[in-house]
Amino acid sequence: MIVLATDFGLTGPYLGQVKAVLARQAPGVPVIDLFADLPAYEPRLAAYLLAAYALWFEPGDVILAVVDPGVGSDRPGVVVEADGRWLVGPDNGLFELLRRRAGVVHAWQLDAAGARPTFHGRDVFAPAAARLATGFFPEGEEATLSTRSGWPDDLAAIVYVDHYGNAMTGIRASTLAADAVIEAGGAALRRGRTFSDVRTGDALWYENANGLAEIAVNGGSAARTLGLATGSPVIVREP
Amino acid sequence: MIVLATDFGLTGPYLGQVKAVLARQAPGVPVIDLFADLPAYEPRLAAYLLAAYALWFEPGDVILAVVDPGVGSDRPGVVVEADGRWLVGPDNGLFELLRRRAGVVHAWQLDAAGARPTFHGRDVFAPAAARLATGFFPEGEEATLSTRSGWPDDLAAIVYVDHYGNAMTGIRASTLAADAVIEAGGAALRRGRTFSDVRTGDALWYENANGLAEIAVNGGSAARTLGLATGSPVIVREP
Amino acid sequence: MIVLATDFGLTGPYLGQVKAVLARQAPGVPVIDLFADLPAYEPRLAAYLLAAYALWFEPGDVILAVVDPGVGSDRPGVVVEADGRWLVGPDNGLFELLRRRAGVVHAWQLDAAGARPTFHGRDVFAPAAARLATGFFPEGEEATLSTRSGWPDDLAAIVYVDHYGNAMTGIRASTLAADAVIEAGGAALRRGRTFSDVRTGDALWYENANGLAEIAVNGGSAARTLGLATGSPVIVREP
Repeated sequence: MIVLATDFGLTGPYLGQVKAVLARQAPGVPVIDLFADLPAYEPRLAAYLLAAYALWFEPGDVILAVVDPGVGSDRPGVVVEADGRWLVGPDNGLFELLRRRAGVVHAWQLDAAGARPTFHGRDVFAPAAARLATGFFPEGEEATLSTRSGWPDDLAAIVYVDHYGNAMTGIRASTLAADAVIEAGGAALRRGRTFSDVRTGDALWYENANGLAEIAVNGGSAARTLGLATGSPVIVREP
Repeated sequence: MIVLATDFGLTGPYLGQVKAVLARQAPGVPVIDLFADLPAYEPRLAAYLLAAYALWFEPGDVILAVVDPGVGSDRPGVVVEADGRWLVGPDNGLFELLRRRAGVVHAWQLDAAGARPTFHGRDVFAPAAARLATGFFPEGEEATLSTRSGWPDDLAAIVYVDHYGNAMTGIRASTLAADAVIEAGGAALRRGRTFSDVRTGDALWYENANGLAEIAVNGGSAARTLGLATGSPVIVREP
Repeated sequence: MIVLATDFGLTGPYLGQVKAVLARQAPGVPVIDLFADLPAYEPRLAAYLLAAYALWFEPGDVILAVVDPGVGSDRPGVVVEADGRWLVGPDNGLFELLRRRAGVVHAWQLDAAGARPTFHGRDVFAPAAARLATGFFPEGEEATLSTRSGWPDDLAAIVYVDHYGNAMTGIRASTLAADAVIEAGGAALRRGRTFSDVRTGDALWYENANGLAEIAVNGGSAARTLGLATGSPVIVREP
């Protein structure tokens, strides 16, 4: 299975051309759209989201991940193996949290010689993903993935707002006490199990289906009600 | 074929994770996005839309349908067989109109024990859809689908606005006289065969490609011109 | 491979029903979404975009292209063969630039008798695309594709704005001098190789990954910064 997690947008020709390359070079392999709206220009925010979702996939799955404001500059492209999952994308911090959370990590650098400088997703990353998905091991010597030692293990900020207006933080719910309070947009929110644990119109936080602490309003939009957007800070208070 | 009709949105990780489950558990079965923007929180409006579209599919096809404001509460999940089409989703009225219009209907209850309370689409409905699509019959005793006897057979309201701004009503065009007038947004609209039956900028109603009475403006947006949104009432006048 | 390039929108039931027809009638053939947001009602603008992208696909690939304000009127549907690529859609100018740029072009007319007047994409074009993709040659006598002799070979206007806010022109970059200046939204832009050739917040133009002259702002939205939308004129100054 090849999983696409990018900031390319669903509309427009980018995902389609990536999928055309995959259909030609990895025929018969299912291709799944996971995210087409990772935080554009923000590999740091995307890194926390990606770590929560990529490890839900299975060993052997290939995740093509692109948030790449530096495309065409000299940042290298990489293949990463993290506990058996393959990741392909730019080496700009996007894989930092995966690297920390996975037990076993290997990396290889990709050669972008000859690729169009504006579209490595199609011309470099998709062919690499297709090779991995069809059983080829990365070529060349192992490389060292760059690190971002200043980034925290969990990020007290909104990393994704979904189309209901639910706002995911970069914090793993498992790291928080049961009675932890999350302050966001001026409100102090208590933990629930699901939306219906509070009255319609009320806000709460809960562990979402991939382990992140997520803020929602029952029957409404937390993003609108609380004024939250990707990048908004939150504060955790543990009694 | 597995058909997805949800309010999950196309962006975000929800559809992708559902499709990953389907790719693993029903390999080789085509998966089609029909709606990712059914009216959120509104199973009643969605029920009229779903009935018009689901019966266009063929016996043996499986439709995974989710508009589920009560996820995590104790509303049951169901499998429904309606004239040979399989439907999987919450038993909250979403299948009410299908139930009435289909000749033969059977239902089975789904077991959600152990599923994450916030994502039954991935953890309960997708595995059930995969089993049906790969030839397994539902397990357990037949159940009785809940009913919504107060809902009309056709709904005089907008149930969907498409990206051109065309507004579908919950009324089957076949139930209306040829000279019926639909009042919507303050205008009285006559029936046409297609957009080009009126001048550019003029509004009309016609039978859409799935049998619903639909309101459009030739070369423009009926939603914007007439101020229509999902849930807006319309009035039918039959001379 | 069947490639979809339409103005149907990704949401809503249109693409899904087209894909359901393709899954039934061309089982196993990969279907790729290239554009679901071609300029609605504007076959002329779409024609320049389509020409740049369609010829990136390979001989034998089938492109179902629909921007069709005249659906239900008497404009004919056509199958076009352009240098081995198959195209299916309305004969309303959408294929004009492909016709001019391809070396060898053949055309056949499609029979729409019995189709729903509002949805030829599903009822006429999808079955035709499925037949071509499964190896059937078009039926009947060759026809003559209509022409639009007044349209220029390259269009000095924005033909597409992507979700980053990058604005594609209808001009092939290969027709411009290296030091050509493009005036758009009141700014005079010089050519770069990629975004990172200018400072964050600055605008430039470059040859995009499919050969069009494209306007962007490094780390920002050219559409918003320069006030550009589909159809906005640009001016080329060659020193």
